[in-house]
Amino acid sequence: MANSIYRASMLQSYSQLLFQPCLSNKHCVPKKTNLLCFASSQLNPARSEVSFCTGTHLIPHPNKVERGGEDAFFVSNFKGGVIAVADGVSGWAEQNVDPSLFSKELMANASSLVGDLEVNYDPQILIRKAHAATGSKGSATAIVAMLERNGTMKVASVGDCGLRVIRKGQIIFSTTPQEHYFDCPYQLSSELVGQTYLDAVVSSVELVEGDTIVMGSDGLFDNVFDGEIVSTLAAYSDVVEAGIG
Amino acid sequence: MANSIYRASMLQSYSQLLFQPCLSNKHCVPKKTNLLCFASSQLNPARSEVSFCTGTHLIPHPNKVERGGEDAFFVSNFKGGVIAVADGVSGWAEQNVDPSLFSKELMANASSLVGDLEVNYDPQILIRKAHAATGSKGSATAIVAMLERNGTMKVASVGDCGLRVIRKGQIIFSTTPQEHYFDCPYQLSSELVGQTYLDAVVSSVELVEGDTIVMGSDGLFDNVFDGEIVSTLAAYSDVVEAGIG
Repeated sequence: MANSIYRASMLQSYSQLLFQPCLSNKHCVPKKTNLLCFASSQLNPARSEVSFCTGTHLIPHPNKVERGGEDAFFVSNFKGGVIAVADGVSGWAEQNVDPSLFSKELMANASSLVGDLEVNYDPQILIRKAHAATGSKGSATAIVAMLERNGTMKVASVGDCGLRVIRKGQIIFSTTPQEHYFDCPYQLSSELVGQTYLDAVVSSVELVEGDTIVMGSDGLFDNVFDGEIVSTLAAYSDVVEAGIG
Repeated sequence: MANSIYRASMLQSYSQLLFQPCLSNKHCVPKKTNLLCFASSQLNPARSEVSFCTGTHLIPHPNKVERGGEDAFFVSNFKGGVIAVADGVSGWAEQNVDPSLFSKELMANASSLVGDLEVNYDPQILIRKAHAATGSKGSATAIVAMLERNGTMKVASVGDCGLRVIRKGQIIFSTTPQEHYFDCPYQLSSELVGQTYLDAVVSSVELVEGDTIVMGSDGLFDNVFDGEIVSTLAAYSDVVEAGIG
């Protein structure tokens, strides 16, 4: 059905991998002050190894500011880099359980297990072991992405956290949320009825230098259209470039 | 932001891998008569190997019926199975070039190269070699998916053909189209200005038995919402089950 023959190259690439975990929020704008640059592959282009250059931004839901929100995340510079987001299920508050405890402990456990030999740099196994180690009552959605130095990014996700990869101004890879019914996502839980690592969607994508990765909870993707994410990144391309070196 | 604690399992799985390449069409309904069952893993559940059970459907655009449309596809039972779709760029007709020749030759070449040692069961390399072997004038978008027996499905795509994976009544994996501007997708071409295998988005997803894969040209995905694909599959679940054995 496509009609137009392509006649010339038009688009330019970003110049650096950037990860922006943006949580529970209608306004997600990367800021220079939030950029943490782990390691750049710019210095060794012959090896063509890549790693994350990471910025983070967390804005709690207005009703949840007091406790700092129910989301949690971690970043790691292990190998090419690991990024993860968890979103505590707010329904637990009705049972006088702080919904943030489970997601925060889950991410803390995952962070400490990144280099674990049994995990073997597999995001699904990381979810399994972090979940098993989490003792808090509650439940959370979670997504983990692990970047190999050769550019392969492996992703495991349970629920409705998400990830987008933007290349040359276009989204080229998206995760898809899982839910039982409206507002009830698949979730890792302290209860037996919840989901497990076996329910994770496991995928991977081959990244190239200059790709931008946006990861967040449903609070981002439910409120910001993909096109707005792309246009926001384009408007702040200087921030992306500022991550170099 | 998710509110509801999950309390019980609700959903049931399809029982068989099914692939339906549906092309240039507003009505994509799998038919029993089109089902080709390559190999079922039902007989050997202990090994948990999987393979495609494939059905196909091609309906040319009403204006292109005479030449059979501009789309092409192939399926192969090599290893876990290979499925591919190409969509000839219709703009070539203005230059008195039949847009279907390039896509058909590309798919024929890809089909003959599936077991090539250099291809090494890598869909991106298959695109490279099939493109290099194609002598027709024209251009096409293309997508190739190769299933390993262990469930890993590797996908390479140039342009706006697409693929969806449906699990338990939900889309859990989608490809994303690439285009230069409206109606001008990334395209493999006989001309130097076109794209190459290097422009392919390369991704993979871990499949489990019972997943359903829908692959097609933009003619499908531009005209049928994802929700309609899911509901159509649900309405014809007997067809999916008919693919067993």
